[in-house]
Amino acid sequence: MQASKNDIKFVRSLGQKKFRQESQCFIAEGLKLVQEALKSDWTIVSIYTTDDDFAMANAQAIRVSTNEMESMTQLNSPSPYLVVLRMPSFDLELTSLPRICILDGIQDPGNLGTIIRTADWFGIRHLLCTTNTVEFTNPKVIQATMGSVFRCQIHCIPTAQLIELVKQHHYQLAGAVLDGEPAYQCNVHPQHALVIGSESHGISEQMQDALDLRITIAGEEGAESLNASIAAGILMAEFHRKWTLHL
Amino acid sequence: MQASKNDIKFVRSLGQKKFRQESQCFIAEGLKLVQEALKSDWTIVSIYTTDDDFAMANAQAIRVSTNEMESMTQLNSPSPYLVVLRMPSFDLELTSLPRICILDGIQDPGNLGTIIRTADWFGIRHLLCTTNTVEFTNPKVIQATMGSVFRCQIHCIPTAQLIELVKQHHYQLAGAVLDGEPAYQCNVHPQHALVIGSESHGISEQMQDALDLRITIAGEEGAESLNASIAAGILMAEFHRKWTLHL
Repeated sequence: MQASKNDIKFVRSLGQKKFRQESQCFIAEGLKLVQEALKSDWTIVSIYTTDDDFAMANAQAIRVSTNEMESMTQLNSPSPYLVVLRMPSFDLELTSLPRICILDGIQDPGNLGTIIRTADWFGIRHLLCTTNTVEFTNPKVIQATMGSVFRCQIHCIPTAQLIELVKQHHYQLAGAVLDGEPAYQCNVHPQHALVIGSESHGISEQMQDALDLRITIAGEEGAESLNASIAAGILMAEFHRKWTLHL
Repeated sequence: MQASKNDIKFVRSLGQKKFRQESQCFIAEGLKLVQEALKSDWTIVSIYTTDDDFAMANAQAIRVSTNEMESMTQLNSPSPYLVVLRMPSFDLELTSLPRICILDGIQDPGNLGTIIRTADWFGIRHLLCTTNTVEFTNPKVIQATMGSVFRCQIHCIPTAQLIELVKQHHYQLAGAVLDGEPAYQCNVHPQHALVIGSESHGISEQMQDALDLRITIAGEEGAESLNASIAAGILMAEFHRKWTLHL
């Protein structure tokens, strides 16, 4: 099988949100991500490779030239492996009260990807994003997840609806703010959903009004701020520890 | 004052390690970083700006054109502010047993920068890097520190010498490995130095042999790995909490 000029143009276009939304497709690049995609039950549209052995071993893979891969990639140095996937649609099922994390307006793709990767580590496989959060199908998000994205369910919901939904299911909202209780002193239980705000704007006003628990990561004088994905990681570790105590 | 062609060429060259080493200079870009540099006691060589008001207010600042700034910058979209600094040399003073963190072979500049920023948050102002760690004067490291770098002392020391030095000062080495004790159960005291390894290779063999405490960040089945700066952040938060208990 060969890649047509139209195929190449199509894959290239998936670097843009508009074309991802139109086609409901997105890409993942690199051997690790392609392997994780193949292991998952997400729908694969096509696979492209410059690696003969890989093309031989994978019936679905289309052998392309280095030039063709360079035309398709979103990476600075293209990998020999690229997969096009269909955007999944998950039914949001909160009745069994899974561990959830709410991402409120995270704009930086690298931060969102790293947060998804960390969530996966701590067994938080349901991520609820407000609609002003960067889409998880952005190539930079996908790369930063290192494949964790294929083990998570990510839902995109307008803020008001998101708050109503989690409250209906008896979750309580715990969010990181500048003037809250030190995180390690808080009484966190499995029905607490962790809310992470953006690095520059924090948690939105609407979401802040809905918080049941306001927490802070205690630091030292003189320092200024933490990266959003670092703050998320520290809180996820703390919540994971406390959730586990309740098992 | 105007920037000469040679000035511009010199600033541009500081994107490369070789020229940073030769000149013992490095750059920081963006208003935040330039302001933090000005607040610090680090030696400023020159400041360039495309902003008239800033040039008026800062006698040291040299007004440059947008084109000139584009020739000097290491950023994809140049900021109006760029500062050239002299590399600091710190006397390593461990007799008062400050909180220290050891960075063992961290290669990714973004990770190192984020780790420096997080260390600053937790009051760890002495960072000891093995010589195979990316230099902190790499522009991507500097950007990711968000200015924290100017509040820290970073020392670059060959591994064997580093281990000897910290042991002489009665530090114990605590490092994150895959098969250690859960971090939150460990008995950490102020004389524990936290060792962070690289994301791909972990802590080097030589350093592993010197560890007094082997710790792990407990996660859930199925997940694979944490980003190095996230692991560092989680452990710094835990160590900070335990160090503080000993005050």
